[in-house]
Amino acid sequence: MLQIMKYDTGSSVETACDVQAAPMPFKLANRMSHPDDTVIEVDGRKIGGNTLAIMAGPCSVESEEQIIEVATKVKESGAKFLRGGAFKPRSSPYSFQGMGVDGLKLLKIASVETGLPVVTEVMSIEQIDYVMEYGDIIQVGARNMQNYELLKELGKVDKPVLLKRGLSATIEELILSAEYIMAGGNSDVILCERGIRTFETYTRNTLDLSAVAVLKRITHLPVIVDPSHACGKRWMVDPLARAAVAVGADGLIIEVHNNPEKALCDGEQSLRPEEFDTLVGALKGLVNIQGRVI
Amino acid sequence: MLQIMKYDTGSSVETACDVQAAPMPFKLANRMSHPDDTVIEVDGRKIGGNTLAIMAGPCSVESEEQIIEVATKVKESGAKFLRGGAFKPRSSPYSFQGMGVDGLKLLKIASVETGLPVVTEVMSIEQIDYVMEYGDIIQVGARNMQNYELLKELGKVDKPVLLKRGLSATIEELILSAEYIMAGGNSDVILCERGIRTFETYTRNTLDLSAVAVLKRITHLPVIVDPSHACGKRWMVDPLARAAVAVGADGLIIEVHNNPEKALCDGEQSLRPEEFDTLVGALKGLVNIQGRVI
Amino acid sequence: MLQIMKYDTGSSVETACDVQAAPMPFKLANRMSHPDDTVIEVDGRKIGGNTLAIMAGPCSVESEEQIIEVATKVKESGAKFLRGGAFKPRSSPYSFQGMGVDGLKLLKIASVETGLPVVTEVMSIEQIDYVMEYGDIIQVGARNMQNYELLKELGKVDKPVLLKRGLSATIEELILSAEYIMAGGNSDVILCERGIRTFETYTRNTLDLSAVAVLKRITHLPVIVDPSHACGKRWMVDPLARAAVAVGADGLIIEVHNNPEKALCDGEQSLRPEEFDTLVGALKGLVNIQGRVI
Amino acid sequence: MLQIMKYDTGSSVETACDVQAAPMPFKLANRMSHPDDTVIEVDGRKIGGNTLAIMAGPCSVESEEQIIEVATKVKESGAKFLRGGAFKPRSSPYSFQGMGVDGLKLLKIASVETGLPVVTEVMSIEQIDYVMEYGDIIQVGARNMQNYELLKELGKVDKPVLLKRGLSATIEELILSAEYIMAGGNSDVILCERGIRTFETYTRNTLDLSAVAVLKRITHLPVIVDPSHACGKRWMVDPLARAAVAVGADGLIIEVHNNPEKALCDGEQSLRPEEFDTLVGALKGLVNIQGRVI
Repeated sequence: MLQIMKYDTGSSVETACDVQAAPMPFKLANRMSHPDDTVIEVDGRKIGGNTLAIMAGPCSVESEEQIIEVATKVKESGAKFLRGGAFKPRSSPYSFQGMGVDGLKLLKIASVETGLPVVTEVMSIEQIDYVMEYGDIIQVGARNMQNYELLKELGKVDKPVLLKRGLSATIEELILSAEYIMAGGNSDVILCERGIRTFETYTRNTLDLSAVAVLKRITHLPVIVDPSHACGKRWMVDPLARAAVAVGADGLIIEVHNNPEKALCDGEQSLRPEEFDTLVGALKGLVNIQGRVI
Repeated sequence: MLQIMKYDTGSSVETACDVQAAPMPFKLANRMSHPDDTVIEVDGRKIGGNTLAIMAGPCSVESEEQIIEVATKVKESGAKFLRGGAFKPRSSPYSFQGMGVDGLKLLKIASVETGLPVVTEVMSIEQIDYVMEYGDIIQVGARNMQNYELLKELGKVDKPVLLKRGLSATIEELILSAEYIMAGGNSDVILCERGIRTFETYTRNTLDLSAVAVLKRITHLPVIVDPSHACGKRWMVDPLARAAVAVGADGLIIEVHNNPEKALCDGEQSLRPEEFDTLVGALKGLVNIQGRVI
Repeated sequence: MLQIMKYDTGSSVETACDVQAAPMPFKLANRMSHPDDTVIEVDGRKIGGNTLAIMAGPCSVESEEQIIEVATKVKESGAKFLRGGAFKPRSSPYSFQGMGVDGLKLLKIASVETGLPVVTEVMSIEQIDYVMEYGDIIQVGARNMQNYELLKELGKVDKPVLLKRGLSATIEELILSAEYIMAGGNSDVILCERGIRTFETYTRNTLDLSAVAVLKRITHLPVIVDPSHACGKRWMVDPLARAAVAVGADGLIIEVHNNPEKALCDGEQSLRPEEFDTLVGALKGLVNIQGRVI
Repeated sequence: MLQIMKYDTGSSVETACDVQAAPMPFKLANRMSHPDDTVIEVDGRKIGGNTLAIMAGPCSVESEEQIIEVATKVKESGAKFLRGGAFKPRSSPYSFQGMGVDGLKLLKIASVETGLPVVTEVMSIEQIDYVMEYGDIIQVGARNMQNYELLKELGKVDKPVLLKRGLSATIEELILSAEYIMAGGNSDVILCERGIRTFETYTRNTLDLSAVAVLKRITHLPVIVDPSHACGKRWMVDPLARAAVAVGADGLIIEVHNNPEKALCDGEQSLRPEEFDTLVGALKGLVNIQGRVI
């Protein structure tokens, strides 16, 4: 029997034979050819394996004060990575598009200040050099999950790529997009479930936690969850984060803002630092009974 | 501040004022008019409050031996209710339609044998008398969630109704269907999330755990989760059940079969008794850190 | 080569062999076993074949004056059937539930007055006797498409059943629900596409005209379209009705109200009689080039 | 009353006031600020207005013989533009990725040979120079509809952009993506409905013809339909194309291959030249009664 998950989240009830029973058209990400979990290390911090990796920070970088304050706070609570957007994909050309390279520089300052590695989004091949210079993990957003030319280029860089599931991407399509990056030579891909588009309108998207269980089972890549974008409502981030940990996610990426009411983007779904602190406290109990650590 | 959930699943981060900010067109199920959790008691067993109610059993009753064996096993593992279908809604008229009243009688025998109250489905007004005679909790399936004439009649009975969310029902529509039952005089309604229909085909349906958080917040009714129908795959029941408990569900309804390979219905998603036992053991750890009991 | 459609809507480009290539689990509705179109006759009016059957009338019967006025107007414009709801399935128990048997009696009066046969909805087995007494075609609404006990009973009646597709029912599930009725002995089933539930919120539902082409190809049953419920907006009924005719639908069921602003139900999507008249005029040109008649 | 559509497809039943009633957050594409239809001219051929523009050709360019043969045939039947992919977005990195610049050169040869302007896809900013050199209309595929950096660059070119709706993009999001291009200075945007992702699996996607009616009403841009990708099945292209014309589409983009069984991509949904010829013949009757021409 192939033991496909080492810590206790319940998904190894079955032997691995039913993995074989559902052949899928991907190779490099396939757990059949790589039974052990891939564990990605950034600055000594692990993503995958027995660690729950917590990434936190504002939707957008807005100012030096803001990003340093948020970075400091989330670090104190237990976050191991700082997230923050400098290049922002917005549905409307008339919405705030992010601070661009200036924002990247502020992220770097906050990173140096706190020691937290930076997760930040890239939207085009042209921006790769910038995010490589100032960031530590390169995020591909949901809208670019099938921007194959971008994925091919990210196959050539030597930093991990955090690949978000597209709004209506199947699990198989997400893995095939990871396969584009891996086929290019970069095997450090982190998959991220962030809610899919369904008929339900109460939540911004519908968080598909079953996808996490499936991705953990049929691939060897780390899988994290973004509860903030999935629900779009501050109060829901906490229960969804707990569920994500319980189902076996390897990490969380959570929006935290020091002043959500004045946020330039996604304020409604951003936790306040004290709410984030409460959440991380609760998660420690959960990971403890799973035999994992934060 | 209105404290809307007593145990710790994180969804009371916010004050109740944002509940008011989203008025919804329902009255009797609304937490604004009934801040305390509704706790339903059946034979001294609680659904809602600080208890995690576990219902388990086969998709369909198939024989006396089968239902007694499964009932005995799930009781030993910690189930407090026996589920089993006698009237079966099947997409095709050519599929097994259930044992009917004979199946109900076998459920009653298993119930007397084990002391477990019975949860069983009703598909039409004509069947109400039968399920009232042999069952303890009356289930309305996803396909009948908007069978309003049936709901109106169930408003007149004095047993709890377990109302499953329709495959493409919004959260609001589910609550409004509960409202049909409550408006008729029966306030003992248990809501059940069992997966919604989306574009994803890897899973049978997509389990929407955010709906559980929302339903707990804006209604006072107990909310349970059916991971078996949501995923349609045995190995996924365990991680999804854990996530459901972590997000704050008041209970689980799980398919267990003593011989899934030979089940007349839904064998692929049924746990074997020993798998169910392992799962309940794991859930005890989870509810313990939430300050709840099974 | 099996000629599966006699008039010119283009869907018989291919030979029937690719119908065989996709076996589906239904028998009685299958065109493979019944190559000719089923043509249903009601009072000398045809549904199926070379006729475009137009059914029109208000969402709900509201008064004798209303239903007679609308019936008279739609008849003058070319409608061959009067639609009108007496039993209304409403999401909320607090919404207008229809006039019930009194509404059926008013429909009968309007039918006698104008000579138009009546299409009206049944929501439960208990209501079958009433709709059989006052109606000519028995409608099963989208929410009851998988109310199998109701379908089984309708298999025993000797009037045609108009079966609407459920909001998230697949094409196969719709046909299997028709199969429930046909297996009971009633082969006069009219299928109705009325929009499915998707992520798009601009329209009430998303009209799936490809389903019409598929249903015409793989079943022999007449297929009609309800553009009013599909879009939920008056101005869209006209272009969608034209598209439905172009794709090969055998009929249309359209909401018409003499005073939409004061309608008790669905006023926003009801055509005014003069708009309906304009639409039917336009449709005559379309069916003419297809070799069909209204 | 604002007459928003000049030819007869029925969507101007209502006065323009209900357009105002639904303000949407876009400016340049808004019909309120630009009541007349935008008509785009390429080499003397019109897209928009009283012309039905037909674009046809293979999914992928495969060889000089293939593209010249298909171009010649579709021109004879009435196509006014040649479509063909050189850069192909494929879900898997292991699938045929298109001939690239060599394919573009073959398209140019076929264009010179037949006089048909070329519609071809661009997948990244790097490819813009190439498609500008060899193509006449620049296509943005569904997967790149929200690749905002690409859209911004296309705002600076002086050739029309054919923008396909994303698989799960709302109508509003599609228009906002057009707005990105227009805000950059390029007002020649052609919108394309090509099917959305829903739960239905019989068809590849679900063609949303109501979107065509909406886009024609609330924007002034030409709107075309791709029935080939929407359905994924050859026999369905014909009835869906007719429905698209009936609902008011300004054009069609259709896959035609001289040997579909051997096509490197999408053979199952490609018409054979003779089938395409039959279809165009049938469409002439339809546009004739609308007061339009091909």
